[in-house]
Amino acid sequence: MTHKYSGSHRKSNGNSDHEKLSFIPLGGLGEIGKNMYILEYNNEIIVIDSGLKFPDSELPGIDYIVPDISYLEANRDKILAIIITHGHEDHVGGLPYVLPRLNVPLYGTQLTLGLIKNKLQDDLPGFRPETYEVRAGDVIKIGSFTIRFIAVAHSIPDGVALSIDTPLGRVIHSGDFKLDSTPVDGRVTDYGAFAEEGEKGVLLFCSDSTNAERKGFTPSEKTIAATLEQLFRAFRNKRIIISSFASNVHRIQQVADVSARFNRRIAFLGRSMIRNAELAMELGYLKIDRKSIISIEESWKYSDNQLVIVTTGSQGEPFSGLVTMSRGENKSITLGEHDVVFLLASVIPGNEKLINNTINRLFAQGCEVVYEKERQTHVSGHASAEELKIMLNIVKPQYFVPIHGEYKHLVRHSQLAQEVGIPQRNIFLMINGDILTFTKNAPPKKHGHVQSGAVIVDGNAAGSIKSEVLKERREIAEDGVLVVSAAVDDRGNLLAPVAIETHGVFISDDTKNIFNELYASAEQAVKESSGKKINVDSLKKLIKTRVRDVLRKRNSSFAVVMPVVSLKHSGFYDDTSLFEKDFF
Amino acid sequence: MTHKYSGSHRKSNGNSDHEKLSFIPLGGLGEIGKNMYILEYNNEIIVIDSGLKFPDSELPGIDYIVPDISYLEANRDKILAIIITHGHEDHVGGLPYVLPRLNVPLYGTQLTLGLIKNKLQDDLPGFRPETYEVRAGDVIKIGSFTIRFIAVAHSIPDGVALSIDTPLGRVIHSGDFKLDSTPVDGRVTDYGAFAEEGEKGVLLFCSDSTNAERKGFTPSEKTIAATLEQLFRAFRNKRIIISSFASNVHRIQQVADVSARFNRRIAFLGRSMIRNAELAMELGYLKIDRKSIISIEESWKYSDNQLVIVTTGSQGEPFSGLVTMSRGENKSITLGEHDVVFLLASVIPGNEKLINNTINRLFAQGCEVVYEKERQTHVSGHASAEELKIMLNIVKPQYFVPIHGEYKHLVRHSQLAQEVGIPQRNIFLMINGDILTFTKNAPPKKHGHVQSGAVIVDGNAAGSIKSEVLKERREIAEDGVLVVSAAVDDRGNLLAPVAIETHGVFISDDTKNIFNELYASAEQAVKESSGKKINVDSLKKLIKTRVRDVLRKRNSSFAVVMPVVSLKHSGFYDDTSLFEKDFF
Repeated sequence: MTHKYSGSHRKSNGNSDHEKLSFIPLGGLGEIGKNMYILEYNNEIIVIDSGLKFPDSELPGIDYIVPDISYLEANRDKILAIIITHGHEDHVGGLPYVLPRLNVPLYGTQLTLGLIKNKLQDDLPGFRPETYEVRAGDVIKIGSFTIRFIAVAHSIPDGVALSIDTPLGRVIHSGDFKLDSTPVDGRVTDYGAFAEEGEKGVLLFCSDSTNAERKGFTPSEKTIAATLEQLFRAFRNKRIIISSFASNVHRIQQVADVSARFNRRIAFLGRSMIRNAELAMELGYLKIDRKSIISIEESWKYSDNQLVIVTTGSQGEPFSGLVTMSRGENKSITLGEHDVVFLLASVIPGNEKLINNTINRLFAQGCEVVYEKERQTHVSGHASAEELKIMLNIVKPQYFVPIHGEYKHLVRHSQLAQEVGIPQRNIFLMINGDILTFTKNAPPKKHGHVQSGAVIVDGNAAGSIKSEVLKERREIAEDGVLVVSAAVDDRGNLLAPVAIETHGVFISDDTKNIFNELYASAEQAVKESSGKKINVDSLKKLIKTRVRDVLRKRNSSFAVVMPVVSLKHSGFYDDTSLFEKDFF
Repeated sequence: MTHKYSGSHRKSNGNSDHEKLSFIPLGGLGEIGKNMYILEYNNEIIVIDSGLKFPDSELPGIDYIVPDISYLEANRDKILAIIITHGHEDHVGGLPYVLPRLNVPLYGTQLTLGLIKNKLQDDLPGFRPETYEVRAGDVIKIGSFTIRFIAVAHSIPDGVALSIDTPLGRVIHSGDFKLDSTPVDGRVTDYGAFAEEGEKGVLLFCSDSTNAERKGFTPSEKTIAATLEQLFRAFRNKRIIISSFASNVHRIQQVADVSARFNRRIAFLGRSMIRNAELAMELGYLKIDRKSIISIEESWKYSDNQLVIVTTGSQGEPFSGLVTMSRGENKSITLGEHDVVFLLASVIPGNEKLINNTINRLFAQGCEVVYEKERQTHVSGHASAEELKIMLNIVKPQYFVPIHGEYKHLVRHSQLAQEVGIPQRNIFLMINGDILTFTKNAPPKKHGHVQSGAVIVDGNAAGSIKSEVLKERREIAEDGVLVVSAAVDDRGNLLAPVAIETHGVFISDDTKNIFNELYASAEQAVKESSGKKINVDSLKKLIKTRVRDVLRKRNSSFAVVMPVVSLKHSGFYDDTSLFEKDFF
């Protein structure tokens, strides 16, 4: 163990009686995604991970979601560093949003930082964060925190857990892990390090709950090799197309190994797949004979049984290689009866429909498709119940917080902890924003809440979208929008007939009569408002009420009614200070 | 076998050389849902089933979907009957839409007709269809079709398959079935009848593909009894809440049986659950000691270990018993630590998110939850691969069409048929609307297509919604709507300043400048159109183009731009025949 780096040092301003250590999750509890955890000792903060979450169909038109970091922005001066456990999107994907707002040093392992740099190049060209590369085994001191990085096996190489020594005790954050006894890269979860920390005494353990509801053990990533061997043999005469996560370097390594044994060349397809493979080969995490890699453009030169195409799209992402192939719209590859597609990934909850549609379309292209339901084409990267219990017994924490999971996972994980002897009162079921505080002379307490929640990032909008806007979108998505436009002068005289337009509105039978009533009701609203100086907001409200009354009475539509009023200044009311402009 | 009923008879107008028999699926192929199949012999049609499908989140604001029945409406005179195989929504749910439009006699078994009558009472009060009750074993003649009803086991009682004898050969439609050797009601799938028909010779077999991708056999419904026994024992001190499909009478029977053994009373909660249980008890399909049933209102009189509450919501339906409980909003039942909830149902694809959210919320209420991932709390009602092969070997059809499934299920089922020796050329992979025609002297042929597709039924609209309207809803759901309103006279003079309103639109920074540009661009469009007689459509188009150009140039929003033009007739252009009215 060496002390290689040293972050900025600050003097603690509290005396030991007022020392406190708080654990505050900003994201990752009650959900799978946007992981972000805060450890705060007196006036020093370190942040662990900075992930995103992909939106479901209830948030149409949204690119991704990140945690609300108001608390961190308000306490920017206290933040010493962001420590990243591994390179998955739910742990690093929020950085393009978070880094420019906090601009603090970033710590991570080699591959993790490589992936982050690629990402920042796309999203924040020109932005250069201050980064520090660490390796599993390193111990660094950042302010009052002494952090030991511990190797863990996961579905991406170079993942780490963190053992964080503080003046009030040791906190261990498991990262995402499994106890794979035969990992593809030979980098086993470092039991020795966890045990050593456990022996020294662990105040708080925060551990990955993703698979807490799965019994037994998660199979080794290496079991995929046997499946691949069988599949390559069974489909020896077909062209093989493989879809996997671009970040699952272990999986790609195994595909490359079996391809070599079957004398097939590999063509990577899709920008993220090509780029990740390139990075992983460059850094030595992926070992492939360069001669066996061909470009997709030269793939026509090879016969079906000499070729493997590795691409993205295992989650049904609309513009991915696999999905464009399934639509017959990929410019490089056209699928047919001579092809077989292997989907080497699990279904991430929420993506069921997209994936299922993709599989159905692949079959409709005439090719054979192999997917998870039938054979072991995927194993999880997260520890199952028995592994979680082993880890709890190794770490032997005094207090336990299950993290990284939906509420049901957290409950199951807390039940597992009780099974291995941690008393229920020492286990805290937390939600995002909760504050768990440790002090010297009293038991820890969950007290209060920092601002937390989701910030929605829309690609074409540089910032974040207010939830009000999303609520409005959902409203108009349900029943469409009916626009009623009236041009009036400031004495309430109608300057032209009322106009009505609709978008996405369905009016039942008798459309003509209903529209005549709608015109009449809007004109009536203008008439009622006339004779005195027009107030645009009141007039809009009145038009809305009158028009809605007609729709309701006729039971014909629940469309959102949008009144628009164009106001002409007549000069009649000359006190311009009272002049109302209909401006957004 | 008795000939009990006789439908209307018609004389065939073709001689035997021109005889033809067509099978036309209108719904149920390439999807799970809205099953509807046509068998047409010369100028006689029978329709099998009339189901609905529930929409996914891509169809916001929609209640349900039924097949497009244009072909049937155009051929109404030819239709002799609608035959219903069983009472599930995907087989009967379309009747409230279909029956008033076709008004033909309906054939079904006792429970099936009972469920249909309940449904029609709600949706079409006063409508009395002509119905004929049949029993498994009956043979009836309808026109040129002689139909034998064959008992099949499924997840609802009283299901039947159909063996339909026609002058050109025998067609067997499997209905929804499994080969449950120990069904709860003892009514085994009638192998003897299938075998007898098989021996006589089967031209075409249409069979349920739902579980074609599952290996092996579907477990017997009775296996649930053992699970229930274990669960009732494990949670003997808790109040038990059970959620299941309201139509799964077998499952409710087993819950009632185990409740009786554990001396617990049953309270049904939720309208459809109460009504279905009532109907099934009345008709003798559900056998429960009436004394053991209590109303939910008197449930407070019983202690936790004396009570079982049976309710709906296993699919996360928003207003169901279970979901309102999970939200703490059910007026009869408040959940807590003394409760356990059993979800005795599988996840119907598309409902994953709703169900998962419900489970998480249940845990947050503090109760224990038992759901499928952990124990065998559900078995399917559909045959798996080995059962499908057995059925194919019993029926020994000359030609085979896999039905009732997504495209992947149809492909897998066709592979199973090839395994048991049906040549690939005798298997037809069809999609909705395809026509498969048999004639006397030539092999059958898939040729042409009748109009098919989805008709979307919106609760508050009596009719159906055009897909254009849905496309519009999706558009505005993505990025909101920006309305630009201009009032002009017919010479193109602006009568009031342009007004702009938005709904669900997010404009990035610099909002004020962007809006100023938007106003200017719209006014510019009016100016360009002035001087000659205004064409409202052209002006709207021009405003849209100009406004979009600004949004695109500023890269600020992809909102749908809706121009609204109010036109005032100035009298300048007096040829009223050319007068354009801006009327919807």
